[in-house]
Amino acid sequence: MEQTVVLITGCSSGIGLSLAVRLASDPAKMYKVYATMRNLAKKERLLDCVKGLHKDTLDILQLDITDQGQILEVNLLGTISTIQAFLPGMKAQGHGRILVTGSIGGLKGLPFNEVYCASKFAVEGACESLAILLQHFNIHVSLIECGPVNTDFLDNPQRAEPGDCSLQQVDAHTRSLYDTYLQHCGMVFQNAAQDTEDIVKVFLDAIQSSNPAFRYYTNNALLPLSSPKISALDGSQYIRTMSKIIFSTNGKEEQK
Amino acid sequence: MEQTVVLITGCSSGIGLSLAVRLASDPAKMYKVYATMRNLAKKERLLDCVKGLHKDTLDILQLDITDQGQILEVNLLGTISTIQAFLPGMKAQGHGRILVTGSIGGLKGLPFNEVYCASKFAVEGACESLAILLQHFNIHVSLIECGPVNTDFLDNPQRAEPGDCSLQQVDAHTRSLYDTYLQHCGMVFQNAAQDTEDIVKVFLDAIQSSNPAFRYYTNNALLPLSSPKISALDGSQYIRTMSKIIFSTNGKEEQK
Repeated sequence: MEQTVVLITGCSSGIGLSLAVRLASDPAKMYKVYATMRNLAKKERLLDCVKGLHKDTLDILQLDITDQGQILEVNLLGTISTIQAFLPGMKAQGHGRILVTGSIGGLKGLPFNEVYCASKFAVEGACESLAILLQHFNIHVSLIECGPVNTDFLDNPQRAEPGDCSLQQVDAHTRSLYDTYLQHCGMVFQNAAQDTEDIVKVFLDAIQSSNPAFRYYTNNALLPLSSPKISALDGSQYIRTMSKIIFSTNGKEEQK
Repeated sequence: MEQTVVLITGCSSGIGLSLAVRLASDPAKMYKVYATMRNLAKKERLLDCVKGLHKDTLDILQLDITDQGQILEVNLLGTISTIQAFLPGMKAQGHGRILVTGSIGGLKGLPFNEVYCASKFAVEGACESLAILLQHFNIHVSLIECGPVNTDFLDNPQRAEPGDCSLQQVDAHTRSLYDTYLQHCGMVFQNAAQDTEDIVKVFLDAIQSSNPAFRYYTNNALLPLSSPKISALDGSQYIRTMSKIIFSTNGKEEQK
C-alpha cells in the first residue's frame, strides 16, 4: 500500500511533536512524515520520542515561516503561505488534506488577548475561504480547534499580556482585572487542559475520515461556551457572559 | 449642551466621508467631529459635502495608520493601534464608545478572498476581546457589519484577487471558478449593495443608543446566510452551502 505523505509544521514541541511521533511510528508504516521545525537544533527531542521506529517514515526538515517571530506572521501569514506553497501540487494530483491547528482564541474573543485572538480569528477566516474553493479540487481543509494544552501554560506562563500597554503603565483597575483574569486562566488550565496525546487522536480522526468535517473540537468542556455567542446575533450576550465568567472568579470585581 | 467628540478615520471617501458629513452638519451641532484621512489633498470632497454647515463642528486631520498599505496592516493593526491610542484617555474619563466598521468578510469566509477575510475576521477577534474588558470601564465597543457598499465595486473592481497566485499562472479549473465567482459578485452587488447613507443611519443608531449592542448589521439581506454557519458547529454545512450559492450561479460548475 502506498504511504500517505504528511507534512507537519512546528515539530519541535507540543502538538506538532506528538503528531509527528504518532504518525512516524505507526506500526503499519502507513505514513511518510516530513516533520518541519524552525530550528533543527531541537530535532533530538523528536528523534528520542520515535524510539527508532521511524525507518522510512520520517524526514526532519527546516522550515522557517518567518524571520520575525511576530504573532500575526507566524499564526496567519505562516499558515497561508505554507498552504499556498503546496496548493498547485495538490490541485494537480486531484486530492489532498490540509489540517490546521485552530484555537478557542479563534472562535471567541478573550480579554487581554486582542492580538492573539485577532491572529487566530484570522486563521478561521482564511481556512473558511480556502475550504469553499478547494472542495472543488477534492482537497479537504479541516480546523482542529484546541483548548488549553498541558504544555502551553507551563512553557509560556507570561503569554497573556495586557494589550493596551505594558503592565507597569496601566491604571490600577486594569491591573486588578488582569490579576483576576490570570486567576481565571489558572483555573481553566487546571480543569480543562489536555495532553497532546488526546489532541493527536482528533488529528488522526480527521486524517483517516473518508469525509472530513471542516471543524473538529478537541475539548468538549469548552463547547457549551458557544451558546451565548450563537443565541444572539448582536453579540452582546457573549460579551456579558464572558465578562461574568472571567471577572467574577473570586468575587473581587463588581457585577455590571 | 456639551458636544459629543467623535473621531472618524478614513474620511476621504465611502462610509467615513458620509458619516463625517452627517455628524458635522447636524443641525443641533451635537457633535464635534475630528475627521482623519491618510492624504489631506483629498479633503476638498469632505468640505464640499458639508456645504459650509461645519462651523465649530469639524476639524480635518491627517492620520496615517500605515506606511505600507498592506491589507492586514490597515484593516487590523491600524484599527487596534488607533483604539489603543485613545484607551487611556477613555478609561480616565470613565466613558466612551468605539465603533468599528466590520464586514460580511469578517463573519463568513469567501473564496478567492482568504487574506481579506483573514484581516476582517481578525478585526472581529480583536473587538470581541476588547469589548469584554472595556465594558468594565463603561466603554462600549460596537461593530457595524456592512455588506457590499455602492462605492466599493465601482472604485475597486479588481479587489477580489485569486489568493494562491496571479491569474496568469493558475490552472484552467481555478480560472473558471474565479470567473463564476466574479459573476456571483456582480449579482450580489446588483441585488444587495447599499448606499453609504443607509449605513450611516446604523452608525447613528449605535452612537445614540443608551445601551449599544456589540454587533449591528446594516444589511438584512445578508443575514439568512448565517444559519448554515450556526446550525452545525462542524462548519461543513457552511462550506457546502456557500460553494453551492457561489459556484452554481450560471450552472457551469458541477455540483458536489
